[in-house]
Amino acid sequence: MNVHDKPPRGSTHAAPDVTTGPLIGSRKVYSPPPGRKDLAVPLREIALSNNETFWVYDPSGPYTDDAVDIDVKRGLSPVRAPWIAVRGGVETYEGRAIKPEDNGNVGAAHLAQSFEAKRAPLRGLPGAPVTQLELARAGIVTDEMVYVAHRENIGRARAAEEAGARLQDGESFGAAVSDFVTPEFVREEVARGRAIIPANINHPESEPMIIGRNFLTKINANIGNSAVTSSVEEEVEKMVWAIRWGADTVMDLSTGRNIHTTREWIIRNAPVPIGTVPIYQALEKVDGDPVKLDWEVYKDTLIEQCEQGVDYFTIHAGVRLGYIHLTADRVTGIVSRGGSIMAKWCLSRHKESFLYEHFGDICDIMRKYDVSFSLGDGLRPGSIADANDRAQFAELETLGELTKIAWDRGCQVMIEGPGHVPMHKIKVNVEKQLRECGEAPFYTLGPLVTDIAPAYDHITSAIGAGMIGWFGTAMLCYVTPKEHLGLPDRNDVKDGVMAYKIAAHAADLAKGHPAAQARDDAISKARFEFRWEDQFNLSLDPDTARQFHDATLPKEAHKLAHFCSMCGPKFCSMEITQQVRDYAAKLNDAGMLSSSEAVEQARKEGMDEMSEKFREMGSEVYVEGGGS
Amino acid sequence: MNVHDKPPRGSTHAAPDVTTGPLIGSRKVYSPPPGRKDLAVPLREIALSNNETFWVYDPSGPYTDDAVDIDVKRGLSPVRAPWIAVRGGVETYEGRAIKPEDNGNVGAAHLAQSFEAKRAPLRGLPGAPVTQLELARAGIVTDEMVYVAHRENIGRARAAEEAGARLQDGESFGAAVSDFVTPEFVREEVARGRAIIPANINHPESEPMIIGRNFLTKINANIGNSAVTSSVEEEVEKMVWAIRWGADTVMDLSTGRNIHTTREWIIRNAPVPIGTVPIYQALEKVDGDPVKLDWEVYKDTLIEQCEQGVDYFTIHAGVRLGYIHLTADRVTGIVSRGGSIMAKWCLSRHKESFLYEHFGDICDIMRKYDVSFSLGDGLRPGSIADANDRAQFAELETLGELTKIAWDRGCQVMIEGPGHVPMHKIKVNVEKQLRECGEAPFYTLGPLVTDIAPAYDHITSAIGAGMIGWFGTAMLCYVTPKEHLGLPDRNDVKDGVMAYKIAAHAADLAKGHPAAQARDDAISKARFEFRWEDQFNLSLDPDTARQFHDATLPKEAHKLAHFCSMCGPKFCSMEITQQVRDYAAKLNDAGMLSSSEAVEQARKEGMDEMSEKFREMGSEVYVEGGGS
Repeated sequence: MNVHDKPPRGSTHAAPDVTTGPLIGSRKVYSPPPGRKDLAVPLREIALSNNETFWVYDPSGPYTDDAVDIDVKRGLSPVRAPWIAVRGGVETYEGRAIKPEDNGNVGAAHLAQSFEAKRAPLRGLPGAPVTQLELARAGIVTDEMVYVAHRENIGRARAAEEAGARLQDGESFGAAVSDFVTPEFVREEVARGRAIIPANINHPESEPMIIGRNFLTKINANIGNSAVTSSVEEEVEKMVWAIRWGADTVMDLSTGRNIHTTREWIIRNAPVPIGTVPIYQALEKVDGDPVKLDWEVYKDTLIEQCEQGVDYFTIHAGVRLGYIHLTADRVTGIVSRGGSIMAKWCLSRHKESFLYEHFGDICDIMRKYDVSFSLGDGLRPGSIADANDRAQFAELETLGELTKIAWDRGCQVMIEGPGHVPMHKIKVNVEKQLRECGEAPFYTLGPLVTDIAPAYDHITSAIGAGMIGWFGTAMLCYVTPKEHLGLPDRNDVKDGVMAYKIAAHAADLAKGHPAAQARDDAISKARFEFRWEDQFNLSLDPDTARQFHDATLPKEAHKLAHFCSMCGPKFCSMEITQQVRDYAAKLNDAGMLSSSEAVEQARKEGMDEMSEKFREMGSEVYVEGGGS
Repeated sequence: MNVHDKPPRGSTHAAPDVTTGPLIGSRKVYSPPPGRKDLAVPLREIALSNNETFWVYDPSGPYTDDAVDIDVKRGLSPVRAPWIAVRGGVETYEGRAIKPEDNGNVGAAHLAQSFEAKRAPLRGLPGAPVTQLELARAGIVTDEMVYVAHRENIGRARAAEEAGARLQDGESFGAAVSDFVTPEFVREEVARGRAIIPANINHPESEPMIIGRNFLTKINANIGNSAVTSSVEEEVEKMVWAIRWGADTVMDLSTGRNIHTTREWIIRNAPVPIGTVPIYQALEKVDGDPVKLDWEVYKDTLIEQCEQGVDYFTIHAGVRLGYIHLTADRVTGIVSRGGSIMAKWCLSRHKESFLYEHFGDICDIMRKYDVSFSLGDGLRPGSIADANDRAQFAELETLGELTKIAWDRGCQVMIEGPGHVPMHKIKVNVEKQLRECGEAPFYTLGPLVTDIAPAYDHITSAIGAGMIGWFGTAMLCYVTPKEHLGLPDRNDVKDGVMAYKIAAHAADLAKGHPAAQARDDAISKARFEFRWEDQFNLSLDPDTARQFHDATLPKEAHKLAHFCSMCGPKFCSMEITQQVRDYAAKLNDAGMLSSSEAVEQARKEGMDEMSEKFREMGSEVYVEGGGS
């Protein structure tokens, strides 16, 4: 298949059908890191009409590579398998058998087709470093680190050459963004816990990526079926669709039946890290009754998902018994599903959270597979009124305590954040998170900067996401237009991803990330030079940009025209500007604009002298260019 | 008519047909200011299912009032006419005759139907105060001031009562937002130039509104046909449609034929201030050739539009000859149409701008009709690379100089701002504008925080708009998804307005505006209490919120259900939270949570004692509520 915007098939029992083929105007290229011809780091190359090319970061995986034959029944190629094997310190074993409750005891009539190919799971051997954190601390630069270092450098060398010092312009609030990312820089950042490479050894299909505030700001897209709606097929396509448009990781938040099978299809076909919230599945195993949850069912679920290859787990271990009453006076109480499950459990059993009590055990399980923590903010605010309250910050302090435990046990950690926060309360969230959690990467949902716009919360939250990304958040969890209203469909997923690509890129720009502004400059030059096709193709969404342009000026010739629909053919500001530029260049050649002092002088003298000089030369330029 | 989302008719020669009727769940109410039963300040009242009502600011005019019979051929009722007449100091006169070139010398075949009803224009008498600024300085509290004071207080008293001190939480960067707006406060703000009430005496149909950083943040929607596309009918409907969703002012940026007639239809039917860029029409009068422009044709155009009732003019008088070459090295040169027209004029004539040279004359004309200045930023940056450069700031300094001249001559003034600005460069724009221009209201276009997302620039710019609004911008000019690509249609207008209502409200929240958070709290309470219909109706766009919800859960019964599609019927975080709340209340009744010290103590003691107490009581609460 090689089609665009193809909707998924309607059947609920067939193997998933997904969108493939490159974006219009782009092709997949692979670049080896220096000295590592065996590693193929993917890039998207945009071909411009002036014969230049432009490279962009590309998380879309083999789906956008015309040379790869996609077969979702087979899954993606396990690119990391040899790296893991060569590194050693792991063993295969039989693994846990799949049980009926893993799929919500679904009856035969509703059972989704299984993913056939089965690999025996890997786990770390006692005493050997397994996680990227342990390896980094041991001074080992893994293949994953080499890969992400090269991946993060996209276009950086070229951009620095062209634009020079401008690229360093920015305010990074203490982040240590480097001019050029080396594998050793990656190792150092991972070793000190300031970045993570979510990479379960049982998810060898993933193309490594890094999350940390000294790297490009990443975005996550949530998908997942629920008891009410959607199918396995839709979820796999949503994953492929989300990464096509730029999602760096995907969380499977499924809660309904077929939960194990859905996840298997997703992971086996995912070139990006997959995150989950294990308590959702654990809850399904106890018939949806939080009171029945216990450590054994949770542990069983963790192992099930570790063996499947989930790359990071949201774990709400910071929702402690003593914090729950702090939410009682809130406008919207506890809005996190995981948070409210644990709150109910704690209160009904009159006990401290079993996640908190067993945190060391959880670490020991996750370490063996290199599953990263995403420490959940179960008490995050669900409304402007509840932002930055004691409940939220008490939990954050506990997350800081848990971060240190996880680090001590060799686990990679990131920290989840709000939620709903008005603009003036955003920055303190980042400052407090960095301080409490030892600069572990922050991973925030939005935040939404007002509560009043359901159906537009991708926008509401993109405002908060742009700001919090600038202030230091490493990964932004998207919000779709359906937030608060329903489950996102394919269009909502794209709208959410787009809003968050904007927020993440704006954050990189404002931080002064060396690779960021090159794309802005490229598209702005194309715009100025009336290279319409280049403007479309350099944009985040070439399809929609082209479609919007064609709605007003559909003719092919208009895409070459030196005017646009805003001004019409008689007059165009861009065209006039070009004439101004030509004129200034001519003045410059004549030595008239060689010193800024002379210009200032001319300004002060009311332009008389300058006008005189203007008059002496070049009037034919405008006679020539005037009028049309 | 009383329909929703009705598209405009296709004919180009019929009288415009527009959307009327209240938003779903709302009705128009009128509230008289204290002691002024003769003034009817409009509000939108949202009826809630718990028998409460909620008032919101409402710029939509009589179109959303079922009791008003709308006839666009007749135009709106001239509500302000008696106020102006009683105040005196004005005279009627014959006015300028309409000339063929006012409509681009359009031939009979393409001539749009004229607006029939004709009123003789008013102008100020020599020596008498005419403008709101002059009246304010003279110590006169005008009816307009009384009206806007009451309008700005929407819900403020009630909100303050309910939520107390929380409403003052915010960071306003030195703005003097008051707890309660009095007519005298309005007069003072207008007198010192820190706010304007755009209110041409020839636009008596307008419902007065105020623009200033100590008032609610306002938004403007641009409409206008061009030589390439769209008709009179579409533009009138776009105006009605824009204000229906919350635009506070509308700019008519038409550039094609029928420019005078289009504007006449718009103004006669506009309950909001209308802005224009007179140089666009002046250019049409000289066949689109900037070189042929001169003071006479510009002056003629100003008078034409003053008599029609335009409320504010964008005038690019800061584009001085000596600044033009400063744009030569830019990535995108001069992107403002007005700016590039003036640049071309200056260079081709080798002269200082005639707008700059005749600025005093312009003031004297505008003063007579109380047309406000919107001093244009002709050298605004058109790309991230060009933000905050010398050209932009040189012009801003000149706008400061012109502000003082306009004030000296009795004119109201606001200042236009960028454009394209990365997040870290936004704040300095506001700081410099306030300093250079004596705190005259700032009116910015976005800014877009990155260049890379054509088709999504309503989002890109909403990020910048939210931030710059927070920092002190008084009015935000919207950007639609079609920016850079084509002319906005009706859907684009709505998308743009929505993004900017979000940005403006987020700014008000962050500034700590006393009236802002009440709506967030109301909708969040509705959300928490599963009052779905109330959540829809309190949102910015009830139609779309409802439609999105129904896409997943269409049944009527679901709107009363205590679950939503994200979690399904088995489990719902909001439901559990209610149980937590009930439980905490019970603990509280028992005196267990009466002191925060006790709570902290319990936390420190590892919860043992607290758990003991939990165990002693209330377990049946959860047996009761558990499971479903």
